[in-house]
Amino acid sequence: MTLFKKLMDKINGDFREKDIISLDQFTQKDIKILFSQVPKMRTIALKAMPSKIIAGKIVVILFYEPSSRTFGSFSTAIKQIGGQTVEILNPQQFSSVVKGETFEDTIRVFEAYSDAIILRHPERGTAAAASDAAKCVPIINAGDGVGEHPTQALLDLYTIYEKFKRLDNLNVLVAGDMLNGRTVHSLTRGLALYPKNTVYLLSPDDLRLSRKDYSNFIGRGVKLVEINSENDIPKNAHVWYWTRVQKERFKNIKDYEKLKNKFVVSQKFLEKYAGKNTILMHPLPRVGEILTEVDNDPRAVYLRSQIRNGLYVRMALLALVLER
Amino acid sequence: MTLFKKLMDKINGDFREKDIISLDQFTQKDIKILFSQVPKMRTIALKAMPSKIIAGKIVVILFYEPSSRTFGSFSTAIKQIGGQTVEILNPQQFSSVVKGETFEDTIRVFEAYSDAIILRHPERGTAAAASDAAKCVPIINAGDGVGEHPTQALLDLYTIYEKFKRLDNLNVLVAGDMLNGRTVHSLTRGLALYPKNTVYLLSPDDLRLSRKDYSNFIGRGVKLVEINSENDIPKNAHVWYWTRVQKERFKNIKDYEKLKNKFVVSQKFLEKYAGKNTILMHPLPRVGEILTEVDNDPRAVYLRSQIRNGLYVRMALLALVLER
Amino acid sequence: MTLFKKLMDKINGDFREKDIISLDQFTQKDIKILFSQVPKMRTIALKAMPSKIIAGKIVVILFYEPSSRTFGSFSTAIKQIGGQTVEILNPQQFSSVVKGETFEDTIRVFEAYSDAIILRHPERGTAAAASDAAKCVPIINAGDGVGEHPTQALLDLYTIYEKFKRLDNLNVLVAGDMLNGRTVHSLTRGLALYPKNTVYLLSPDDLRLSRKDYSNFIGRGVKLVEINSENDIPKNAHVWYWTRVQKERFKNIKDYEKLKNKFVVSQKFLEKYAGKNTILMHPLPRVGEILTEVDNDPRAVYLRSQIRNGLYVRMALLALVLER
Repeated sequence: MTLFKKLMDKINGDFREKDIISLDQFTQKDIKILFSQVPKMRTIALKAMPSKIIAGKIVVILFYEPSSRTFGSFSTAIKQIGGQTVEILNPQQFSSVVKGETFEDTIRVFEAYSDAIILRHPERGTAAAASDAAKCVPIINAGDGVGEHPTQALLDLYTIYEKFKRLDNLNVLVAGDMLNGRTVHSLTRGLALYPKNTVYLLSPDDLRLSRKDYSNFIGRGVKLVEINSENDIPKNAHVWYWTRVQKERFKNIKDYEKLKNKFVVSQKFLEKYAGKNTILMHPLPRVGEILTEVDNDPRAVYLRSQIRNGLYVRMALLALVLER
Repeated sequence: MTLFKKLMDKINGDFREKDIISLDQFTQKDIKILFSQVPKMRTIALKAMPSKIIAGKIVVILFYEPSSRTFGSFSTAIKQIGGQTVEILNPQQFSSVVKGETFEDTIRVFEAYSDAIILRHPERGTAAAASDAAKCVPIINAGDGVGEHPTQALLDLYTIYEKFKRLDNLNVLVAGDMLNGRTVHSLTRGLALYPKNTVYLLSPDDLRLSRKDYSNFIGRGVKLVEINSENDIPKNAHVWYWTRVQKERFKNIKDYEKLKNKFVVSQKFLEKYAGKNTILMHPLPRVGEILTEVDNDPRAVYLRSQIRNGLYVRMALLALVLER
Repeated sequence: MTLFKKLMDKINGDFREKDIISLDQFTQKDIKILFSQVPKMRTIALKAMPSKIIAGKIVVILFYEPSSRTFGSFSTAIKQIGGQTVEILNPQQFSSVVKGETFEDTIRVFEAYSDAIILRHPERGTAAAASDAAKCVPIINAGDGVGEHPTQALLDLYTIYEKFKRLDNLNVLVAGDMLNGRTVHSLTRGLALYPKNTVYLLSPDDLRLSRKDYSNFIGRGVKLVEINSENDIPKNAHVWYWTRVQKERFKNIKDYEKLKNKFVVSQKFLEKYAGKNTILMHPLPRVGEILTEVDNDPRAVYLRSQIRNGLYVRMALLALVLER
């Protein structure tokens, strides 16, 4: 099956035994089904209830690059719903891959041991390649470089949905690096699935969206407003989605320092520009762009709800894909 | 207990609390008992049935060298039959071993935590040494360098048995590096347990069996036929067992290139020299000696049945050793 | 909550949802409660009984430095009582920490996935810092550098208690490096909780207790006797607690060699200086200071009882902290 064909193979409410490669596989209906399962997962996790939803299932977590956060979230999600993991970290340092085994053979070996494979890989397109190679078990993309990380997008959407009970008619401010930010791109694509959303993009000129991405997102139906000053932040935005600006992206270190000082969320900044019901999100890690003084503000959801929602959404997704 | 004594301590149908160090411990009867358990294991794994066969048991997987394939197979096998693993990778990089702890002390520490230890080590003889050190729990050898890897041999035998319902009166072609190939040696020793087997050894002259191994195998009762051309491949061999030829073994790179081109299994090669019921095996990883075009041929069992059988045979062995 | 406040927040019999950071949190009553649970844990582990004591609970094992022994003990303990682990080794090599994430953020991420965190870190004070950062789940200190390793002290105390059915009125000989030995310090502090204990400190002059530690221990009520020759070893000591002398601590290599030869426990040495009921303990790893010829002496408990007790004590502690 070619990549194009596979990406067109929408889920449409039937998650069973499906690869989860891209956010583009998901329709509104799929997301509704997925999110409808989340409260049950939340109860299982919060009450530490022993669950048998995927009892007997073995899931291989195959990570070609370390990511303790995503790894921990998936590993916990599988165990919370009664499955077991076989965890393979950095297989490229192991003998078979070193000896020249192809990626496709490695995938076929691990699918022989398991009921699903969670794949993390630094190169774009590897999740789709794994999906083509695997004959028997679903592949779940846990990040393929600058490509996709669909469960991150889904957990971000769920965090918004949990607060506002809808995913349309929202004003969302995203701040940071629009040019390179994978999470920002995928959130925007997710919001584009729903009508009447406006995304405000707050970034320095050097880090604006590429014109290609801009056209793409517009074409999907989301309204975009590019801004470069906090004074243009819309009043009462529903969501602030803050991201880390990567120092290494800048040509001029002074531009970085300027931006860094400009777009730090302090309690004062939050009081001045955010609304009473705005939620403040961040994909983490943060490195100073949200001050710790903000952590206890009820609008700050990045350190608890957003991470917990990542766990619940992954539990729900795995349950839908693997449930007996 | 000395190694010699231990290796003579044959299993003879009582697997309970036994070390599994060498293929030489196994009689026909032992193998029959083991294989009789495999279909049940296959059902458990294929149906992802939650099993309690070794529930409550903790198995330490102690790997002094990385081997993601063997590691994954054992880890899965333990979990499929209801056990749990404690996984210790590269303990020689950890503090206690670095501080000068002896191998024997390390083994005694880990046996104190567990109901069995699966040991992988780059040095020949370490599994037997661990067996001597351990006082309370069985040691299972998952490969000790150029020494033994008994579960690999058992899964190869099972794959043949599954197809032909017997392990005698077979014509088996093994191809590749007879001089250094551990899997080839152990398969030959396994076939020597049964009457009237002939093993055809296809290799370049430089990579023929050592005369010592040749005499040893003959002495065990298997018939050996050394060949060096595809034209001498017997018609309707039951099994083709292909292996990787390691470039670094060759004195002359041209010899390597010549062989490499000569002994590649393409679809055409398979049609010309194999029989309708021949099964094509490979211990993996392959690096080009079987073309991917062959993967979908029903005779090709290396990417699915053979790997799956490794899982089932390990499940069966662990169940026999540890069953409550 | 400050560290000082937290350390004063004694357990006093209510382990539920408590951080376990320091031995100083424990009263006689706490230790009594803890030890009363050990025989049940011993039965579960020895009989490999499937247990549901903490079924459904996920425990993150977050180790910033490798320690295969402590890691294995905690991982086994959690699984023996029905919990599951998410194991994160060397997170400081992973992307988020490398990208500049604070320790506090890392702790808050992992607490979002789990019901407890077992933390190992090379720096003193990190367990208390984690305890301050965590909002929802207990932190259990598995060693913070030269700081504390409370479960090691507890397992040592239990091993003595198991033999003598009391922790008071004991003569305990500790040998090796009094200056730097963490286990020796914590054992002494533990014995100081009980009346009428005398600790004999056998070490070369260079490795005597610091005067600060000496005063501290005296102040806690334990009697100390410093000796530097085997001839001063008290007759019929209840306990010998041997430790490794670290070569690198010595200014003069000859002093090391002298000591090394002097304080090696051989069978002969044991017969000459120990009593019939003395138990010989060692925190391991050993590097020659107890000869292997002593291993089978019934007084030698370091290779089996002491390690097993570590497992049982950790099971008991986790059960008390996390039991449903």
